[in-house]
Amino acid sequence: MNKLRLQTFIFLMMIPGFFVGSKNLYAATSQESKKSNIILIFADDMGYGDVGIFGHPTIKTPNLDKLAFEGQKWTNFYVAASVCTPSRAGLMTGRLPVRSGMCSDQKRVLYDNSKGGLPESEITIASALKDAGYSTACIGKWHLGHLQPFDPNSHGFDYYYGIPYSNDMDHAFPDSVNYFEACANPKPGYFNVPLKRNREIIEQPADQTTITRRYTQEAINFIKEKKDEPFFIYMAQSMPHVPLFPSKDFEGKSLRGTYGDVIEEIDWSVGQIVSALKENGLEDNTLVVFTSDNGPWLLFNENGGSAGLLKGGKGGTYEGGMREPTVMWGPGLVKSGVVTDLGTTMDLLPTFCNLAGTQLPNDRVYDGYDLTQTIAGKSESPRDVVIYYRGQKVFAIRKGAYKAHFITQPAYGMGGPKELEIPELYNLNVDPSEKYNIAEQHPDVIAEIQILLKEHLASVVPVENQLEKY
Amino acid sequence: MNKLRLQTFIFLMMIPGFFVGSKNLYAATSQESKKSNIILIFADDMGYGDVGIFGHPTIKTPNLDKLAFEGQKWTNFYVAASVCTPSRAGLMTGRLPVRSGMCSDQKRVLYDNSKGGLPESEITIASALKDAGYSTACIGKWHLGHLQPFDPNSHGFDYYYGIPYSNDMDHAFPDSVNYFEACANPKPGYFNVPLKRNREIIEQPADQTTITRRYTQEAINFIKEKKDEPFFIYMAQSMPHVPLFPSKDFEGKSLRGTYGDVIEEIDWSVGQIVSALKENGLEDNTLVVFTSDNGPWLLFNENGGSAGLLKGGKGGTYEGGMREPTVMWGPGLVKSGVVTDLGTTMDLLPTFCNLAGTQLPNDRVYDGYDLTQTIAGKSESPRDVVIYYRGQKVFAIRKGAYKAHFITQPAYGMGGPKELEIPELYNLNVDPSEKYNIAEQHPDVIAEIQILLKEHLASVVPVENQLEKY
Repeated sequence: MNKLRLQTFIFLMMIPGFFVGSKNLYAATSQESKKSNIILIFADDMGYGDVGIFGHPTIKTPNLDKLAFEGQKWTNFYVAASVCTPSRAGLMTGRLPVRSGMCSDQKRVLYDNSKGGLPESEITIASALKDAGYSTACIGKWHLGHLQPFDPNSHGFDYYYGIPYSNDMDHAFPDSVNYFEACANPKPGYFNVPLKRNREIIEQPADQTTITRRYTQEAINFIKEKKDEPFFIYMAQSMPHVPLFPSKDFEGKSLRGTYGDVIEEIDWSVGQIVSALKENGLEDNTLVVFTSDNGPWLLFNENGGSAGLLKGGKGGTYEGGMREPTVMWGPGLVKSGVVTDLGTTMDLLPTFCNLAGTQLPNDRVYDGYDLTQTIAGKSESPRDVVIYYRGQKVFAIRKGAYKAHFITQPAYGMGGPKELEIPELYNLNVDPSEKYNIAEQHPDVIAEIQILLKEHLASVVPVENQLEKY
Repeated sequence: MNKLRLQTFIFLMMIPGFFVGSKNLYAATSQESKKSNIILIFADDMGYGDVGIFGHPTIKTPNLDKLAFEGQKWTNFYVAASVCTPSRAGLMTGRLPVRSGMCSDQKRVLYDNSKGGLPESEITIASALKDAGYSTACIGKWHLGHLQPFDPNSHGFDYYYGIPYSNDMDHAFPDSVNYFEACANPKPGYFNVPLKRNREIIEQPADQTTITRRYTQEAINFIKEKKDEPFFIYMAQSMPHVPLFPSKDFEGKSLRGTYGDVIEEIDWSVGQIVSALKENGLEDNTLVVFTSDNGPWLLFNENGGSAGLLKGGKGGTYEGGMREPTVMWGPGLVKSGVVTDLGTTMDLLPTFCNLAGTQLPNDRVYDGYDLTQTIAGKSESPRDVVIYYRGQKVFAIRKGAYKAHFITQPAYGMGGPKELEIPELYNLNVDPSEKYNIAEQHPDVIAEIQILLKEHLASVVPVENQLEKY
């Protein structure tokens, strides 16, 4: 407490009854015994370099910048895969997607005619938090199976509002238009994606030009409704995945073109959600996490994003494919600062469970670590290793500063996989752009990482593949 | 003023005599009639991506980040050349270096045996501000001529403390060591650079391991001494130009290696200077500008910096060579925000003159614009055009979002110049990495820029070349 505030406090203490009925203080007191609320905002195909505070020169993200400055900017935060479905499976289950059958060497993701999905036997963030007494909402894109056994309501979410898979599926564009053209110059109706409220289709095709705004309103409504109980909102924005549909208010607003318009609308949405938390007196007991599902889809040029100084993008296992611009915010929970420690989306399940005061059953392998102490600024991240899967294969492993590549593939559309006779080795702290292969100087590090690979592979039990079911 | 503060203020108003002797308020009042102080901090070879808030994942720059967040982060701010001497000539004179003879197709920069320097006929920031009643100090690297007619004391600086040219000159390493090795693994004594106080050599070779700290102390001393008069400090850090010499306190501190250590020490220095301003009650009437002289020297790999998402580096005319991480701070003068408008170091002379309430003589061509209204958040930048010189030739011109390249050269050591039959054209707002040449779609824009080129070239009067004098 600074001097001026202390003086104010003493002064206010002198006024009899001043605190009685003081709304904010009342809220703070009543929340001391309440479990922390959690809001996880997940962008789609947004690159490491697409946020102002992560270095983009012309995309303006004042809300994310402010949250990062007040909270934590994580600069070494990863996803479980460089493409949508497996990345989300890893996020939701705290386990590498290979453990749930949610990745494949044959199929990138689930499609609108897929028959598979996230198995019912999996524990999700939502089911764990629901068991701990949370109200749970999934707002936005799901993409872990659109059939009933796999949908959000089957996986612990009390409420669902969103689209079941990517916004570029359910093709309905004319035969004269190819897929790339349809994505680059989309028209409403080109993609017949349904919008659902729980299990009911309420609109088809979903009007994507208003969808970010509607997701936002749904999240705000849920915050208002559930402000007196602990809640978890998984807000999975369906863009900046192509096709890009900013709303009228954001069309042409960004210097960065349509891609920037969409990011700036997502940033606006983040600001609206934080405002709703403040209006409902919840900001001191809510953790807000923002990240993205994988790197930018470089094939789409100006309609795709930027990984900043990182190499590669979506579909690849260089850093640009799997390291994401990540912000954690919550004045009562998060110690302000830049965090260079390692973290992954798989760490969110154990972290959120700790915040909720609940424990996960000990009947399966988890790949996540509890980051609460790091978020609180009390200790370093417990994570020291990141495993980079592409499909069902391990392409690379990071241990501390060092990353060894066994197979490389920079991004979709940039050449096939290249198996390396001698692994490539990079010091990512010194060389984040993976420019200077130092394998020759550090055979010991490669040997150590190869042992990690062997140990990891021994922990993987074959399961039914969900992406190959049609 | 928020509610709590207002209450405090009312409360304090009720205490008779509370404000009497309140140091900060007294200072603010006395300064209303005082011209604004100006501190210009200029890094050497620091890339666009080498600051936390400009996207570097492992270089920690909490001081610069905070200044950028409280003040302005300029994301489209340029230098006059992608190499040291001409860049500094442009900065000091507000004129393209070709107008003062300070660039050459034959010689990159001035060397320790050069006979030339910035002509006495040139008006510098220091001489203009000195005429307006400022106390002026140059602390750090000069590199605009080490002979007496060209030195800082001959160019308007009351006080000088620093090295006359780059920290990699005056070679004194053994014959068995080549230049690159000497820079990559420097030892004290390898570079026999003198350290001067005004015209006196006080140390040779300058102890570079303590130089950043000593520059900082000199700046703090000057602030203390001159706090009651308007002052201008030009603080030209001699690093992260190779050879890199962090002090003992910073050696091994950064995850980014020695390069990061050096940047983190420069960031510390910025923090010390701002603290000194605050301690002396000057923060409300001082403008602090931080930028760098050119892009990263990529040839030095891990010992060179990163241009982030920008293409190229030092010695080139792609964005990475000439766009710099720029921060403007001053609570009483600078409106907080991200500025995407165009600015250049040549704009600082007219901007500072406006702050000092003085006018430049109308006897020569200036290439700068007064940015005070943009800094104050009152209007857009008056600048719409950036001219990218390499040596004595125009390689590229930016007009608004569009940049046309006539000749390209990405950086030193990455191939020679390539004259283009048809210019390359990029929309830098949408495509900051200069990936997607759109020349074919916009012949009108190229034609418009070609007219600008013609007009500009007509304004250039041949002068004696200073870099070729030996």
